Amino acid sequence: MIRSERKSYSLREISERFGGEIVGDPDTRIRQVATLENAGPGSIAFLANERYRRQLDNTRASALIVGESMRDATPLPCVVCRDPYAYFAHVSGLLNPPRQAQPGRHASAVIDASASIAEDAEVGPLVVIGRNARIGARSLVGAGSVIGCDVTLGDDVRLHANVTIYDGCMIGSRVILHSGVVIGADGFGIAMSDERWLKVPQIGKVVIANDVEIGANTTIDRGAIDDTVIEEGVKLDNQIQIAHNVHIGAHTAIAACAGVAGSAKIGRYCRIGGASGIVGHLTIADHVEISAHTLVTKSIDKSGTYTGAYPFDANREWRRNAAQLRHLDDLADRVRVLEQKLTQPKRSKS
Amino acid sequence: MIRSERKSYSLREISERFGGEIVGDPDTRIRQVATLENAGPGSIAFLANERYRRQLDNTRASALIVGESMRDATPLPCVVCRDPYAYFAHVSGLLNPPRQAQPGRHASAVIDASASIAEDAEVGPLVVIGRNARIGARSLVGAGSVIGCDVTLGDDVRLHANVTIYDGCMIGSRVILHSGVVIGADGFGIAMSDERWLKVPQIGKVVIANDVEIGANTTIDRGAIDDTVIEEGVKLDNQIQIAHNVHIGAHTAIAACAGVAGSAKIGRYCRIGGASGIVGHLTIADHVEISAHTLVTKSIDKSGTYTGAYPFDANREWRRNAAQLRHLDDLADRVRVLEQKLTQPKRSKS
Amino acid sequence: MIRSERKSYSLREISERFGGEIVGDPDTRIRQVATLENAGPGSIAFLANERYRRQLDNTRASALIVGESMRDATPLPCVVCRDPYAYFAHVSGLLNPPRQAQPGRHASAVIDASASIAEDAEVGPLVVIGRNARIGARSLVGAGSVIGCDVTLGDDVRLHANVTIYDGCMIGSRVILHSGVVIGADGFGIAMSDERWLKVPQIGKVVIANDVEIGANTTIDRGAIDDTVIEEGVKLDNQIQIAHNVHIGAHTAIAACAGVAGSAKIGRYCRIGGASGIVGHLTIADHVEISAHTLVTKSIDKSGTYTGAYPFDANREWRRNAAQLRHLDDLADRVRVLEQKLTQPKRSKS
Repeated sequence: MIRSERKSYSLREISERFGGEIVGDPDTRIRQVATLENAGPGSIAFLANERYRRQLDNTRASALIVGESMRDATPLPCVVCRDPYAYFAHVSGLLNPPRQAQPGRHASAVIDASASIAEDAEVGPLVVIGRNARIGARSLVGAGSVIGCDVTLGDDVRLHANVTIYDGCMIGSRVILHSGVVIGADGFGIAMSDERWLKVPQIGKVVIANDVEIGANTTIDRGAIDDTVIEEGVKLDNQIQIAHNVHIGAHTAIAACAGVAGSAKIGRYCRIGGASGIVGHLTIADHVEISAHTLVTKSIDKSGTYTGAYPFDANREWRRNAAQLRHLDDLADRVRVLEQKLTQPKRSKS
Repeated sequence: MIRSERKSYSLREISERFGGEIVGDPDTRIRQVATLENAGPGSIAFLANERYRRQLDNTRASALIVGESMRDATPLPCVVCRDPYAYFAHVSGLLNPPRQAQPGRHASAVIDASASIAEDAEVGPLVVIGRNARIGARSLVGAGSVIGCDVTLGDDVRLHANVTIYDGCMIGSRVILHSGVVIGADGFGIAMSDERWLKVPQIGKVVIANDVEIGANTTIDRGAIDDTVIEEGVKLDNQIQIAHNVHIGAHTAIAACAGVAGSAKIGRYCRIGGASGIVGHLTIADHVEISAHTLVTKSIDKSGTYTGAYPFDANREWRRNAAQLRHLDDLADRVRVLEQKLTQPKRSKS
Repeated sequence: MIRSERKSYSLREISERFGGEIVGDPDTRIRQVATLENAGPGSIAFLANERYRRQLDNTRASALIVGESMRDATPLPCVVCRDPYAYFAHVSGLLNPPRQAQPGRHASAVIDASASIAEDAEVGPLVVIGRNARIGARSLVGAGSVIGCDVTLGDDVRLHANVTIYDGCMIGSRVILHSGVVIGADGFGIAMSDERWLKVPQIGKVVIANDVEIGANTTIDRGAIDDTVIEEGVKLDNQIQIAHNVHIGAHTAIAACAGVAGSAKIGRYCRIGGASGIVGHLTIADHVEISAHTLVTKSIDKSGTYTGAYPFDANREWRRNAAQLRHLDDLADRVRVLEQKLTQPKRSKS
């Protein structure tokens, strides 16, 4: 329970906002969302997966959000809708609005005189804001964050505590950056010269469009020459690494610990699994799904699901099979020899 | 050598505290622990692995900690004990006590007036502490850390520099959080609605029990609805990602760069290898060991060791074998055909 | 475009500094580097890869850096040289010099009176510098960074914002640390004793030699007893984890998200791919290349390229092949049986 002021809504009010059909008492009042398992009076839970159906019997929720097929599965008041999880997201958003900026600049913040900060923005304690930075309306910069020179933040941006944005990066509106995020550090540009690495200056920036959310400790490097670009509505989980000059298409979602190497171009509406990797300079089509722990080594030009994780096993089984994997090409050769022997038995005897 | 005041202890004093049998002069004085290789006078080293036995000959240590089987392996004074590495840990802990909190609040810290901070706690420079936060006895909050509203820290907690804890999270006693740790950022809860991602508010919190240590830049997300829970004695290395609603059982240890997806439930006394991954909504039994770089895609209900790493090889060999791996199912079919031909030779001729 | 003052240079001046042969007008003036695709007047682009040759036709660059084989590929003024990418790095470094320290200490920094800071060093806002720390000439400590007690930084060091360095660590000259880097957190040293983990104090430090660059959110743990050592010229990308007592040889480069486990010793001039892992206590020779997503489980004593990534595929193909992989040892047995049957046909009939 992290938000202090809470209103309640009747099922009728909820369905007026978000649609759906009410089954049961429309005056049932809802104060908070809950899981089936831990719901109490005044709470609404959802059931999106038949797997959890048996939890219906014991729930103490006051109401449920269910799909058409579950309409009769419970005597509790219900909202019947097409997509219970999305409906639940709407209801939870209504009951748990994000914290609003409290206009003002904390006295301990160090703000360059040339920075332009909206009057209704909130600048938290011990924030640093550089030369010519611009911060839009109702934006909220969390404690300890450091915003470089010439950075722009749009309206209704939320920077949690201890975010770092390097010089020159551009952040759209309604963007959320979680703690430990680093935007615009130098890409990994090095060239070998006379047996030493030479640094290649990274002079591009990072451009993040509207409605992007970026998880804790994720890093997005600035471009080597041109920019690194994150299109609108992209959602990045925690501890993701986006290298220089990557381009991520709108509404793509990437799970935690994934890494995207330099200049890769990812399409729109992709779903990239946790700890997966995309090699540099590849192109991934729209609507591509990459499974967890998969390394994508070639461009993908067709939507679909792609996978490359090693199937885990009890260590003893793994050990036996993995040992053979190191001789698989030989095994295939041996099978070829056997096939030749069996299809040409006479010739081999002659 | 990072600690300033150092006392010395005789082997007799050490064995009185931690047990073990002294072989040689019990008045040998010990000031510090060391490796066999770099030990000098006044230091004690340990030998836990026969592999390093030959290093005994050249060591300049004043004393050794050894197992029963090595009792006669050296003329140096020894403590003979059952588990030399654990014994060494005790001795090193005695000689290198953690830095104690120096009661007081640095003048540069920004502390909400409603926060409740133990008198003997230490609040470092440029710390931010939010509304209604509570900090227990002898706890130490490192420079630049940001502690949200309604956070509780138990007694003897150590936050190193630049830690971030979001609103409402609960941290037990004797917990150590290293720099860059982020506790309680929003879990990755998004629902697709009208071709856009909708944010699902993350209203659970993170609850961390006593005696947990968490490595640098590790992230633990708050629960979506209910809480994310880390039980007592859990040890997490650096750069680990723990997603929303994960539950980690007591005394489980996880190596660096591992990731645990949402709602996974990990048992007690597990050992999870580096860069491994646990898929969401799984259950892992107690005393399970997961090898490095393994992706666990199904629940594990029996203790034991599980592995799924690809065996590495010289690139040329790997290339040949990996190419065949993409045709393994065909190869298995071809072997089946060969087996049929060989077991039914007559019919195939008829 | 992140740097404010910019000079221009003629091709003649450039070739006087960095060599190469000018083809075309040596008075062509260059103000900035650019990609072939987005170049404008006054910019110089490079062509290192024949793949991009067709982009020559449309580029609006004023000049090009090309290899010998491309000498006649364009009518634009060119610098012909042996290694266009390295040459480009030199030119970009000339046109984009790093920001210089502006001598002084920001009033908001919290600096221990015993710290020794060069007069021409720059200490940014809200920095914390501990007891007896030493900061060399022209070094620049970014906003929000925390430097522990007894830390030494050499000359011309650049710490970006929000870097953390624990007590006692030693950083050479011309080192660059990006935001979120944590140097010297405790290694993951734990010993099981009476069914609880015992912390093993980590009393070594981290020693980083000259000309090292470390990417955002990378972590390098202090040694358990002896030190963790990063030799000169090592380049680490973002989100890398270096465990206690690792030793990395000079001029080795490691890509993002890699992890190196405790006490591993990596040679000089190695190239380690992204998200790869090196198991603890291994030794890797000089000039070894490790591919992305590869887990190195044994020491490597010969230079060369080593790989262990699972070849990805469309999910349906992967599923069929991965299922067989779990029976590969059985398949190999079945092939052996077939081979025996075919080579000993008479005996099997007797």
